Amino acid sequence: MNIRVTVWNENVHEQENRIVASVYPDGIHGAIAEGLNADPAIRTATATLQEPEHGLTEEKLAQTDVLLWWGHRAHGEVADEVVERVCNAVWSGMGMIFLHSAHFSKPFKRLMGSPCNLSWREAGERERLWVTSRNHPITAGLPNHFELEHEEMYGEPFGVPEPLETVFLSWFSGGEAFRSGLTYKRGAGNVFYFRPGHETYPTYHDANIQRVLLNAVKWAHNPAPRLADPNAAPNIPVSKALEPIEERGSRLHDDGEDGYR
Amino acid sequence: MNIRVTVWNENVHEQENRIVASVYPDGIHGAIAEGLNADPAIRTATATLQEPEHGLTEEKLAQTDVLLWWGHRAHGEVADEVVERVCNAVWSGMGMIFLHSAHFSKPFKRLMGSPCNLSWREAGERERLWVTSRNHPITAGLPNHFELEHEEMYGEPFGVPEPLETVFLSWFSGGEAFRSGLTYKRGAGNVFYFRPGHETYPTYHDANIQRVLLNAVKWAHNPAPRLADPNAAPNIPVSKALEPIEERGSRLHDDGEDGYR
Amino acid sequence: MNIRVTVWNENVHEQENRIVASVYPDGIHGAIAEGLNADPAIRTATATLQEPEHGLTEEKLAQTDVLLWWGHRAHGEVADEVVERVCNAVWSGMGMIFLHSAHFSKPFKRLMGSPCNLSWREAGERERLWVTSRNHPITAGLPNHFELEHEEMYGEPFGVPEPLETVFLSWFSGGEAFRSGLTYKRGAGNVFYFRPGHETYPTYHDANIQRVLLNAVKWAHNPAPRLADPNAAPNIPVSKALEPIEERGSRLHDDGEDGYR
Amino acid sequence: MNIRVTVWNENVHEQENRIVASVYPDGIHGAIAEGLNADPAIRTATATLQEPEHGLTEEKLAQTDVLLWWGHRAHGEVADEVVERVCNAVWSGMGMIFLHSAHFSKPFKRLMGSPCNLSWREAGERERLWVTSRNHPITAGLPNHFELEHEEMYGEPFGVPEPLETVFLSWFSGGEAFRSGLTYKRGAGNVFYFRPGHETYPTYHDANIQRVLLNAVKWAHNPAPRLADPNAAPNIPVSKALEPIEERGSRLHDDGEDGYR
Repeated sequence: MNIRVTVWNENVHEQENRIVASVYPDGIHGAIAEGLNADPAIRTATATLQEPEHGLTEEKLAQTDVLLWWGHRAHGEVADEVVERVCNAVWSGMGMIFLHSAHFSKPFKRLMGSPCNLSWREAGERERLWVTSRNHPITAGLPNHFELEHEEMYGEPFGVPEPLETVFLSWFSGGEAFRSGLTYKRGAGNVFYFRPGHETYPTYHDANIQRVLLNAVKWAHNPAPRLADPNAAPNIPVSKALEPIEERGSRLHDDGEDGYR
Repeated sequence: MNIRVTVWNENVHEQENRIVASVYPDGIHGAIAEGLNADPAIRTATATLQEPEHGLTEEKLAQTDVLLWWGHRAHGEVADEVVERVCNAVWSGMGMIFLHSAHFSKPFKRLMGSPCNLSWREAGERERLWVTSRNHPITAGLPNHFELEHEEMYGEPFGVPEPLETVFLSWFSGGEAFRSGLTYKRGAGNVFYFRPGHETYPTYHDANIQRVLLNAVKWAHNPAPRLADPNAAPNIPVSKALEPIEERGSRLHDDGEDGYR
Repeated sequence: MNIRVTVWNENVHEQENRIVASVYPDGIHGAIAEGLNADPAIRTATATLQEPEHGLTEEKLAQTDVLLWWGHRAHGEVADEVVERVCNAVWSGMGMIFLHSAHFSKPFKRLMGSPCNLSWREAGERERLWVTSRNHPITAGLPNHFELEHEEMYGEPFGVPEPLETVFLSWFSGGEAFRSGLTYKRGAGNVFYFRPGHETYPTYHDANIQRVLLNAVKWAHNPAPRLADPNAAPNIPVSKALEPIEERGSRLHDDGEDGYR
Repeated sequence: MNIRVTVWNENVHEQENRIVASVYPDGIHGAIAEGLNADPAIRTATATLQEPEHGLTEEKLAQTDVLLWWGHRAHGEVADEVVERVCNAVWSGMGMIFLHSAHFSKPFKRLMGSPCNLSWREAGERERLWVTSRNHPITAGLPNHFELEHEEMYGEPFGVPEPLETVFLSWFSGGEAFRSGLTYKRGAGNVFYFRPGHETYPTYHDANIQRVLLNAVKWAHNPAPRLADPNAAPNIPVSKALEPIEERGSRLHDDGEDGYR
């Protein structure tokens, strides 16, 4: 079965910064898409902040099985309407993968319900990732640990809810440790946060990182049909109760009416 | 140690509906506060939608250890600014307990990051609550199961994230089962959702329910000092790294500057 | 890819009780295997208590991707050596599904680390299962709820650790609710507990139950190679440290030696 | 309220190794007990492997609110009968804290249901612990990170079940990261694993470590009465069903009889 992936990138650093442009001549989204397309089961499209509706129309999301999100400098420029649309797609069953500085993106903070803050240092130091969950699908084909010679540091405490599973930890030369791979479920949607990916380093050209993203796409993909309305809160009238009951006491609502929101 | 509790209630049904007014002549908030004040370690205040800033000023929240929330008809009238203020207080360490129809309140949906939807039926049917976590602090002094003769039904699937712990299940006469007591942590704050409490029934006068709320207040209370800024994301300059490192590679940020949000 | 399944059954009631024999003329294991074999991607074998080594030799387990376990009357007759072998297979990556009264089986108690107790009643009452985790792979193709007209009751508190995810709740005519579908991971192995399946009722002939088992097999199956030694605790000598360090202070062990167990 | 603590230590290295004896002249148990007794709310006793029944009689456990466990060289000498007794006490509500090499102790492996393995190196390297759960009771009064200048290294993957909460991560000079503080619940008992504490280093004389142990004792303590029988699996006869039901279909058991184990 094909998995339809959309890689979203704000695509700002690439336009403004010579170094980032040289590391990612096709944009961060381009590099990620190229890595994913190496798997014949995956068809990858891209979308960026600058496109109408940031390239994330209802139609596009309806045809996206898994969405990857990279943002940093322009978090505040993402329209709230698109954020709600993306969250509704996740709740309906779309998989979603948040990358690196997307920890502070609007949709990640919206889905986590928490500050998503951390400490950080941009010093090109060594990061070593450790697998904590044996044979987790997201770690398929990976060694127990691997290195990125140059990365930005992220430090704990990381202001996210306790995950379903902690899949990776990171060690940094400067002395910090961090929970770098975390799984969640929100509504019907699988969500994965993956830490590495600073824009000035060639992280998305690294074979192990590409493998993690490929695995994560397959893990996040849910082949079940998308929920028609992930926010539905149906009233079940007494006449349709599964066990015979009689209405008792007083009430405020009429049969089948909408509840209060 | 005293625990400072604030019971928040939208206080709308009590003003508009004769039945609710007769069940709760002092308001739902009044009944809950009375139950809590039976414990000398707890000092309870109330706040309602109609007060300036809904009675939830910065000062009030700063002096609240645990906030309880009851809302239903007027979810949409709660100011977004107050919702953010409440969430920031939770992230800083304030405990919070969401009651019954508060599953669709703005702060609960904001903290869960999910639709928080469910099915429902207002038929005064029997609800029986079952303890699922033995000797959990929230179940102290309770039997393994207890009944509410008349309650509104809530049915699964309940659109919330997997909790830290499932503390209660409910059985309903009409044939549904529901996860009725769920614990979460958001930032530094403990969060508890507790299902019963429909406005037309005397649920908050029930001794077992009062016991749950008392236990939940003690469980949610965190005596640690509130975090000064729950959203802080400090830059750690190379010169202050805990292990000696040298800056390598190129970078976008200056030492100690704010990151992008 | 084919999934190699082994259905294990103590196969005692079928030999001793006329009713069970009439409901399951090919044994409970036979009925379960027949349901699974309807999927061409699954090849199902069976094993029973009466076979040498209960049919669970090292070779058999090495060729089993997912093991299902049904036991009741003869829990105590399962050899401890086989229990350890099964647990080691799970820790190495074999998926495992425990059915109904297997809550008190030796391997389930061994993997849970808890009493696994519950209350029960054999009255042929109605059970209704509710899906609590939307679009979970184990619920694929199922409605939000379905019924078994005759089942044994299991009641809370269920003495198991908090699961990774609660997938099903049960409602019973007699007034109980129960967490009926629970996921775990132990070592590299996925574990699922599924409540229904009393020997005197035709539960394993039910289409929804067969669907759950099929889904659960696919969920539990991990295509990664089995771990060679799931209990390995390797010493990493200073000379092989990933960062250059020098040995400091005193020590008890020699390089590369086995640790204490 | 007083909390009654028992510190259990195998007390072998202290007798056999000059260095350990000089670091812990009163034994590791003596050092831990001294740290805990600094809090007037805690009364600490000790027990060792060499005592009859390892000092852990039924009476002793019945009067222990929280048990700490340190073992290493003599895991295999702990009697299985005592291990079952300790686990039953945990399931009944006794809190339990496993220290350092107790990851391979019999009761920890029994309660986890998993291999509990890890990689290790004894090089006196620096360990830095990071708090991952803000304002968790176990971190009260601690900075966001603190150091131990000399410790044994433990590396991931750590073969334990996903915890309720990850409270600490460790960073090691040699390049590893590790989940160092993990909470669990088993039956009615709270369980905490805390990594540091190698016998040749003065870890238990460190003020931050003493603070963690004090906090952990208070967190693990459950004031609820101990369960009379944590393994009880009561039959509920039809005549005592909470909702009126009639027995239907055939059955194997008589009313009120014991189930199969």
